[in-house]
Amino acid sequence: MNKEITSRSTDYSQWYNDLVIKGSLADYSAVRGCMVIKPYGYALWENMQQQLDKMFKETGHVNAYFPLFIPKSFLAREAAHVEGFAKECAVVTHYRLKNSDDGQGVVVDPEAKLDEELIVRPTSETIIWNTYKSWIKSYRDLPLLINQWANVVRWEMRTRLFLRTAEFLWQEGHTAHATRDEAISETERMLDVYATFAEQWMAIPVVKGVKTANERFAGAEETYCIEALMQDGKALQAGTSHFLGQNFAKAFDVTFVTRENKEEFVWATSWGVSTRLIGALIMAHSDDDGLVLPPKLAPLQVVIIPIHRNDEQLQQIKTKAEVIMQSLKKDGISVKFDDDDKQKPGWKFAEYEMKGVPLRLALGPRDLENNTAELVRRDTKEKQSVNLDQVTEIIPAMLDAIQHNMYKKALDFRDRNIYQVNSFEEFKATLDDKGGFIAAHWDGTPETEAKIKELTKATIRCIPLNNTKESGTCILTGKPSHQRVLFAKAY
Amino acid sequence: MNKEITSRSTDYSQWYNDLVIKGSLADYSAVRGCMVIKPYGYALWENMQQQLDKMFKETGHVNAYFPLFIPKSFLAREAAHVEGFAKECAVVTHYRLKNSDDGQGVVVDPEAKLDEELIVRPTSETIIWNTYKSWIKSYRDLPLLINQWANVVRWEMRTRLFLRTAEFLWQEGHTAHATRDEAISETERMLDVYATFAEQWMAIPVVKGVKTANERFAGAEETYCIEALMQDGKALQAGTSHFLGQNFAKAFDVTFVTRENKEEFVWATSWGVSTRLIGALIMAHSDDDGLVLPPKLAPLQVVIIPIHRNDEQLQQIKTKAEVIMQSLKKDGISVKFDDDDKQKPGWKFAEYEMKGVPLRLALGPRDLENNTAELVRRDTKEKQSVNLDQVTEIIPAMLDAIQHNMYKKALDFRDRNIYQVNSFEEFKATLDDKGGFIAAHWDGTPETEAKIKELTKATIRCIPLNNTKESGTCILTGKPSHQRVLFAKAY
Repeated sequence: MNKEITSRSTDYSQWYNDLVIKGSLADYSAVRGCMVIKPYGYALWENMQQQLDKMFKETGHVNAYFPLFIPKSFLAREAAHVEGFAKECAVVTHYRLKNSDDGQGVVVDPEAKLDEELIVRPTSETIIWNTYKSWIKSYRDLPLLINQWANVVRWEMRTRLFLRTAEFLWQEGHTAHATRDEAISETERMLDVYATFAEQWMAIPVVKGVKTANERFAGAEETYCIEALMQDGKALQAGTSHFLGQNFAKAFDVTFVTRENKEEFVWATSWGVSTRLIGALIMAHSDDDGLVLPPKLAPLQVVIIPIHRNDEQLQQIKTKAEVIMQSLKKDGISVKFDDDDKQKPGWKFAEYEMKGVPLRLALGPRDLENNTAELVRRDTKEKQSVNLDQVTEIIPAMLDAIQHNMYKKALDFRDRNIYQVNSFEEFKATLDDKGGFIAAHWDGTPETEAKIKELTKATIRCIPLNNTKESGTCILTGKPSHQRVLFAKAY
Repeated sequence: MNKEITSRSTDYSQWYNDLVIKGSLADYSAVRGCMVIKPYGYALWENMQQQLDKMFKETGHVNAYFPLFIPKSFLAREAAHVEGFAKECAVVTHYRLKNSDDGQGVVVDPEAKLDEELIVRPTSETIIWNTYKSWIKSYRDLPLLINQWANVVRWEMRTRLFLRTAEFLWQEGHTAHATRDEAISETERMLDVYATFAEQWMAIPVVKGVKTANERFAGAEETYCIEALMQDGKALQAGTSHFLGQNFAKAFDVTFVTRENKEEFVWATSWGVSTRLIGALIMAHSDDDGLVLPPKLAPLQVVIIPIHRNDEQLQQIKTKAEVIMQSLKKDGISVKFDDDDKQKPGWKFAEYEMKGVPLRLALGPRDLENNTAELVRRDTKEKQSVNLDQVTEIIPAMLDAIQHNMYKKALDFRDRNIYQVNSFEEFKATLDDKGGFIAAHWDGTPETEAKIKELTKATIRCIPLNNTKESGTCILTGKPSHQRVLFAKAY
């Protein structure tokens, strides 16, 4: 156990913060609620971005960039949207500073007040649909399949690194369609892209579902989501895809001429994932020794550490290591030889464990004599002695094995932590004792959902898409229900 | 000549705007001074980013991300910096909106006033050096070689798409070093990276030089730059690399313990290029028919257009085109077959000319009979009939030829437009009649430089790095000078 890291059982929340800070993923900043994403954390984000961007482009999307600022009045155009987003946000009121009279700094120039305040985008539906108005005239202009990689700001009162920060990085897709059906298909397609990314790249199993009205995106007709389970039994929403109906088209008067020469409002979707996914990645897989990163996303996949007593030994090891590295790099595997002489091997072992590097190869003089090396997997900590002639075949196979094992472990954990309960007592007991996803009957009303949240802090995470219909009675009100929904406490 | 585009001779400025708008690179937005970068323009930026990012990583840099907001007091810490950057900027004063009393929208909540205003970053030296303070303790922590891809905001009064916008996208490198020499080497290394990128990728020749004190970055000891010449004879600063000395380390108290166990201030550099480069790319190469994009950065390198009278012909052409495309894609060439039946071939020819696609291949039924196709290069508009069996060899070679020809053409133009003048009369006449870079003697004082700017609008673009020493007298004051410097009117 790494002594620098608080154990999960001691303080889960502190454990998480320790991993973020000591794993060099992010740091606090001088600006309240804003974080600094450090190079190692940013490299992880770049890997996530690269794969998502590829998947977006493969499904026909292109990237564009829209302004950071949104005129205040735009937010008010869509009734539900303004309720959800025009509250806690960063407001630009002035465009100039001037030297203070005492010469001791700068002050806001009262002369430079904006006629209309600008909001730093909390999400971009309004500015984008205002732009689409001039881009869409006819069915020939549709569909528009556009994505944006950007920073957004939501003035959260309680922040946590990656999970909830005032500024965060994300992508937001904003598509425009000629028909309702096409827009719904797009919403579902992008949910599938997110689910595939979460499961195959992040090694995190997710439940695909739709949100209840209470949890829906402000301005959406339907919000689809993927929900993941963290090791402490709390859920984390890992991505959302919204069917926006014609709400934004109506708010910004975006119509098109159909093939039949009629004028109709355009149909919309939006969908996004953010740097929050890094929080999910940490909490889904890591342990008391540090981060455990899935090989497909790890910034560094293999580290080679020399064990030597003198320079001559180091040179021999280095020569061998370089042959191995060349071969691995040819296979697209990222690998580093750490011969930094300021630290001992034991320190390095702990450091790369903390950083979640999937495979560690230790090479000493005796290994060279025996033509072997010691290979250690981060996920299971299993050690094995491998033949150096086979090491470049074993490593790629083992990276695959780690990726699959991490997913399987997370899936087993998730599946073990879905509980069916049939009474409110059982509901509360399960929530307190075990956490996890609780599948329970609910009468379908926002009031009951709100009451359960008030009493237990649990929310309905989603109504799973593959739900089986089943008659029952609501755990709180006893009213009839035709399906179970998934409750959980959530990040 | 494309009728939708104003010719350069009629109105150069309108020609530029036409290319940006009609070439689908960018659009105006509802927010004053902010632009929307459209998918085609963004694809160009992505290609530029990808290559620059690769070059940064090859020179040992890593990416990170720092907050969008800068506390107002940070800007005031470095005396020169505050003069340069704390003036026209977006100021966040509040963090909440609330429903207006009349129920007709939202208003700023006066209760939610920030104790200290936040500035939307115009550049990030201050917030980054405030962060480096906690990252740097010892010489072991140095150098720090960090780059950030980000949006920044400078509240410009007069804006032009790409060239000068309130919000723009850029990268900013911020490095920290143990010695003055190492920091200067880094500054020069990154200037070389920019020059290589401009010349080999953008096909734009540049002059490497240093700025005079008047034109220096606010807070720098020395600003290195690359200067390019546009077709209208005006210069454009295409990238800057700053040696910041210990100015920011002193302002934020960033010291380190040396190998000799002494405490010293850290040495700094910063360097950046922005979406402004897209403006340079347009103005350096394009013509009255539209954009001319260098093959190495063009979002689409080859377009294949079918010329057909019926579906059967189209099918035959398509079959052939698919074979060609498969082969080109294998070589990493981007290619599109445009069989959109809503537009005629002539319209498509004009459209892809406008968009600057380097090569156009037209395929008709007679071509198939003769086993030929018509290939047209965008840069010279030369047409040639090519044998279909050779087309996949000819195309990559011709893309290379276009890239080289574009650079050579721009270099010839630039070299033809460097004028040596020896009197102020000659200076003014050359500036008015020809424009271009004017190499002239200057007495080395900021006052003379300012006076020349006032009288002619020309500024000293740079003192070229490879300048030959030559005795002379200042064109304005007649005082002695030991070298010529480059003057120009500039974007």
